[in-house]
Amino acid sequence: MKKPYFEMTRREMSLERERLESRFEYMKNLGLSLDMSRGKPSKEQLKLSQGMMDVLNSESELVDETGADCRNYGILGGIPEAKRLMGEMSEVKPENMLIFGNSSLNVMFDMVSRSFTHGVCENDPWMHQENVKFLCPVPGYDRHFRITEYFGIDMINVPMSETGPDMDMVEDLVSKDPTIKGIWCVPKYSNPQGYTYSEETVKRFAALEPAADDFRIYWDNAYSIHHLYDDPEKQDYLPEILEECEKAGHPDLAYKFISTSKVSFPGSGIAAVASSKTNLSDIKRHMRVQTIGHDKVNQLRHVRYFKDINGMRAHMSKMAGILRPKFEMIYEMFDRKLGGLGIATWTTPHGGYFISFDGLEGTAKAIVAMAADAGVKLTPAGATFPYGIDWRDTNIRIAPSYPDMEELHTATEIFTICVRLVTLNKLLRG
Amino acid sequence: MKKPYFEMTRREMSLERERLESRFEYMKNLGLSLDMSRGKPSKEQLKLSQGMMDVLNSESELVDETGADCRNYGILGGIPEAKRLMGEMSEVKPENMLIFGNSSLNVMFDMVSRSFTHGVCENDPWMHQENVKFLCPVPGYDRHFRITEYFGIDMINVPMSETGPDMDMVEDLVSKDPTIKGIWCVPKYSNPQGYTYSEETVKRFAALEPAADDFRIYWDNAYSIHHLYDDPEKQDYLPEILEECEKAGHPDLAYKFISTSKVSFPGSGIAAVASSKTNLSDIKRHMRVQTIGHDKVNQLRHVRYFKDINGMRAHMSKMAGILRPKFEMIYEMFDRKLGGLGIATWTTPHGGYFISFDGLEGTAKAIVAMAADAGVKLTPAGATFPYGIDWRDTNIRIAPSYPDMEELHTATEIFTICVRLVTLNKLLRG
Repeated sequence: MKKPYFEMTRREMSLERERLESRFEYMKNLGLSLDMSRGKPSKEQLKLSQGMMDVLNSESELVDETGADCRNYGILGGIPEAKRLMGEMSEVKPENMLIFGNSSLNVMFDMVSRSFTHGVCENDPWMHQENVKFLCPVPGYDRHFRITEYFGIDMINVPMSETGPDMDMVEDLVSKDPTIKGIWCVPKYSNPQGYTYSEETVKRFAALEPAADDFRIYWDNAYSIHHLYDDPEKQDYLPEILEECEKAGHPDLAYKFISTSKVSFPGSGIAAVASSKTNLSDIKRHMRVQTIGHDKVNQLRHVRYFKDINGMRAHMSKMAGILRPKFEMIYEMFDRKLGGLGIATWTTPHGGYFISFDGLEGTAKAIVAMAADAGVKLTPAGATFPYGIDWRDTNIRIAPSYPDMEELHTATEIFTICVRLVTLNKLLRG
Repeated sequence: MKKPYFEMTRREMSLERERLESRFEYMKNLGLSLDMSRGKPSKEQLKLSQGMMDVLNSESELVDETGADCRNYGILGGIPEAKRLMGEMSEVKPENMLIFGNSSLNVMFDMVSRSFTHGVCENDPWMHQENVKFLCPVPGYDRHFRITEYFGIDMINVPMSETGPDMDMVEDLVSKDPTIKGIWCVPKYSNPQGYTYSEETVKRFAALEPAADDFRIYWDNAYSIHHLYDDPEKQDYLPEILEECEKAGHPDLAYKFISTSKVSFPGSGIAAVASSKTNLSDIKRHMRVQTIGHDKVNQLRHVRYFKDINGMRAHMSKMAGILRPKFEMIYEMFDRKLGGLGIATWTTPHGGYFISFDGLEGTAKAIVAMAADAGVKLTPAGATFPYGIDWRDTNIRIAPSYPDMEELHTATEIFTICVRLVTLNKLLRG
């Protein structure tokens, strides 16, 4: 059993620090350059989709199932078979799907941008309303927060727990304040914790009675089929939000976003929105001015490669085979190097792309800086909070996917050394 | 020699009408369904790019020339070789290029949207300025006008001539009125006339001294290499606008848009913006929030297929081989069926996708409606003007590309019958 730092004498701490400093110096002198900053698939993962490059060739009939030419202009909302495939991935009917280009982030940006300049459905544009606000479960996804920040939308932090955002707070705020127009959610294998909203949370979301008619739930189901384990017992379950909203009598309450960015190629996937027909036709009103249509050949490529949700699931099981050892290695090393010291907590998700790490208050920035010094690039501390401000300075997002196992092993060891050193520095100073 | 309608007696006109009516009835009973409404490439043209589906396969190294992985996230502005290829197509250096997704229309929409919500460079967002206006050379491209209309931007018609927009008017308005923020231009083989701006016009554009710091020329060079003839004598020449702006001391005055939509596949091409470094970094400030990057595998596919501008030119010469007979057939039939009647004028461009037709005042809508009645779908009359309003009701855009030769022949005959019948109806009524 390791001795918690809080129970150590100053002398014990000093000795521990000396020992770690010499190990840190050794690691630093290796001159590493490792990137754990973003949820970027590794080369090994990308290779799994390489076969996608073979499904279409010059002999292929590039027509959709209705015979429409995928090479030409048109078919604004996507080809029927892509709606079906992405619908299966979303657990939603094809008629509730719109297919977009390669980036669901771009779709979310456009959604906020459109609501800002032209309003949601028949409501006033946000630009003509005072003090528009969004709820932001924290820690959360930095790119979500940057979109709302970019449009000058005030962001209110809502604490996350293992079951999802604090729903008492969400209900209270959303039902009372008509300036609250949305909430950013990553409901399954959340970014960065890897938490999945509980059934109760999802039902409470669907039952929301917003003060604002133009309030929507921005349900970014980025990791819907991104399990780390094949065993169904170890796969998180998330009720389908649109169905729950429908049942609760609020069919237009949510926009659901998905993409194949972490299924096929991150730069060349397809993105989609699932929502009620009312919301989709509102979206199309804007889309029709913006473009003649998205890349349908790429839609066809995805459908012909994966065929259906079973094809996707089989593919994702191979992905899991690559990712799982990385996550497990980190769980194991965190446990071994940090467990029992009383200085850190971390999540151990069964899917998604991230682990959320919390150190003692006031340590996150220093840990990230020290790791950078040894060649390990982490997501900047604070990035998981709106405006980049983590007041307690505890949270760090760990992204295990990109480095190979050996690199990741080294990077994780360096990280744990940094955590311990920064904490010891703080304790010895304090 | 045909007798002009204005010189006919009422009896002659009635006889002519009877004869045409019986021909029209015959054509109508054929039960045709022909589409001449949009500048949509034909299947035959699309086939020319089918080989593009073979350049990448599962054995391909999907990396750019710096070794960066095109499959993964990142490289916001496009891969270097795509900047070079699209730069050659734009006659602009790679460092002045940004590469986007499959739609230059989407890029233009985003440009207006960004200027509206966040402003051009350091200027106030248009949404905080009163009465923002755009100049619209008419007849022009309906989708341009719809973007500015969508954002509530007032549009001022500027008459087009064979040398481009009325530059006296443009200079006068732009230099005096700080609420004028842009002008929509299709400078080469214009939509719908097929006119190319003269050297003098381009130089006068570059020399503009706008009252508004955030005025920009929206230079949609959609048909830059879209000649109908291989003979250089029959190819229109357009000076390069960014170079002219630079020479005139206004390096930031223009945004140039191009795409491969009518080079490779309309739905699956790549789009680009060429502009000054100042403008490009302003654009990227927005883009960075909107997306992690566009489809780089498709960029790679285009570069590996065309290789360079010579590859593109050879390809476009084959395109011309398909389009030229269509345009020439129409020129010939218009000449034969409408020439000398004194009831219509039309353009005879050497490139691009359209012919601009003008009937007598008050006939365009009726001609389009009558053609629809016989199964020929034309661009709605008025579409070539802001708000869809052609006060004189004369202009119709003819799009020869989509139907095959036989269909086009029939459609064109029907069109000429409709022109003559509608005109006779008008003259006999009047």
